[in-house]
Amino acid sequence: MIVEDKLRSLDIELPDLEVEYQENVSGARFVSHLAVRDVLYLSGTVPLKAGRPHLPGVLGADLTVAQGYEAARYAMVQALAAARYALGDLDRIERALQLIGYVNSAPGFSEQPRVVNGATDLLVELYGDRGKPTRAAIGCQGLALGSSVELVLTVLFSGSDVRPPLARDRRA
Amino acid sequence: MIVEDKLRSLDIELPDLEVEYQENVSGARFVSHLAVRDVLYLSGTVPLKAGRPHLPGVLGADLTVAQGYEAARYAMVQALAAARYALGDLDRIERALQLIGYVNSAPGFSEQPRVVNGATDLLVELYGDRGKPTRAAIGCQGLALGSSVELVLTVLFSGSDVRPPLARDRRA
Amino acid sequence: MIVEDKLRSLDIELPDLEVEYQENVSGARFVSHLAVRDVLYLSGTVPLKAGRPHLPGVLGADLTVAQGYEAARYAMVQALAAARYALGDLDRIERALQLIGYVNSAPGFSEQPRVVNGATDLLVELYGDRGKPTRAAIGCQGLALGSSVELVLTVLFSGSDVRPPLARDRRA
Repeated sequence: MIVEDKLRSLDIELPDLEVEYQENVSGARFVSHLAVRDVLYLSGTVPLKAGRPHLPGVLGADLTVAQGYEAARYAMVQALAAARYALGDLDRIERALQLIGYVNSAPGFSEQPRVVNGATDLLVELYGDRGKPTRAAIGCQGLALGSSVELVLTVLFSGSDVRPPLARDRRA
Repeated sequence: MIVEDKLRSLDIELPDLEVEYQENVSGARFVSHLAVRDVLYLSGTVPLKAGRPHLPGVLGADLTVAQGYEAARYAMVQALAAARYALGDLDRIERALQLIGYVNSAPGFSEQPRVVNGATDLLVELYGDRGKPTRAAIGCQGLALGSSVELVLTVLFSGSDVRPPLARDRRA
Repeated sequence: MIVEDKLRSLDIELPDLEVEYQENVSGARFVSHLAVRDVLYLSGTVPLKAGRPHLPGVLGADLTVAQGYEAARYAMVQALAAARYALGDLDRIERALQLIGYVNSAPGFSEQPRVVNGATDLLVELYGDRGKPTRAAIGCQGLALGSSVELVLTVLFSGSDVRPPLARDRRA
């Protein structure tokens, strides 16, 4: 539980994914994660704090780069929460493989990399060099909940047990 | 052919991908699909109906969420047509793995997930829980043919035979 | 070195990735490439010429489609430079697997595929049919350095030796 100790030392609490998936029933039908061999695919995550949208808005209009950076960090906490749910222990992440960071941007804004740094800096704080993925930072036009950032992360993991994914779904 | 029976019961006809690739010679050089072990990568698909763009436009400006939802469903029909061409039988899809849905969006539009639901709902109608991929819904600025939605789908499949892909290419 | 001979005959010089990574210290923590079995993931690349942004701007506003096409070609040169760094020899690329091309677009611009053709045409000039990936061309709102195009490429490669990736990182 080395990585989770580091999270605590950073004063970051991972949300309970089961509670989140129960409370946020968006009508969307997708799952939190899927594994193919040692590659874990995670659904896109947005910045939440205590289950509520955190720092929504548009970079270059509503938010500063520093706010976008913080939002990206919170979106990465969500991705890590999904990985912990899937793997049971964040120490099983061997390597961050690919991160595509979408940044809700106003025309003319081109600091997407500095925003997405909020996500990769957290990975490196937790995993060192293993936390450095291949990466792209893309300006987009609109995201769910008016979020400022959405992250699509894949990681490599060790071991073979992966928990069945949580599904977002319609209420019965 | 269980899934194709379901498609018929939903009154959905898969287009003939060979005809489409012959008729739509965009000058682009890419292929319909490629397989790596049991992962099938599909090229981005947009909503077509009888080979013509269906419900083009921008969400939050030209189209309602309900129209975007329908467009996403038609874009998924195109992705399934490519998968059937590749695999011969849609029953060979074991699992929808990852879906990135790009939604052509006006400033301030944030209902991308409800639009992309049109794609994942069809997957679930056909495949049940196996049709739920990991997913992201991203607002974008402009798509080919003025399309409202583009889908990038990967699936897991059983068996090993995969047909050589169709290529879009320049006329000789 | 067949592919590198072709590059020379096209008068294309691959940049030295080590020099680029040393000079462009963006504060971002990510790596040039990572390999999983025979799949090589490359970080997003933008158009550079002699290490400087080449043809930045927005399609549909600042740049013509022909300029965007040229920009996409230069962005692909960057991706190939990363692949050569990783593999030592571009002949080891067996197949272009997936290319997502993001095109910095003004409202109403829908010629993203013709822009991204600049990238795939170069692949086909070098690799023939093996250079045709699965592909999507997506209009986006803003990219690093004001770039007009960003490419996210994965390729299949032969052999097993892959050089450790270069890292972008903060100065000590």
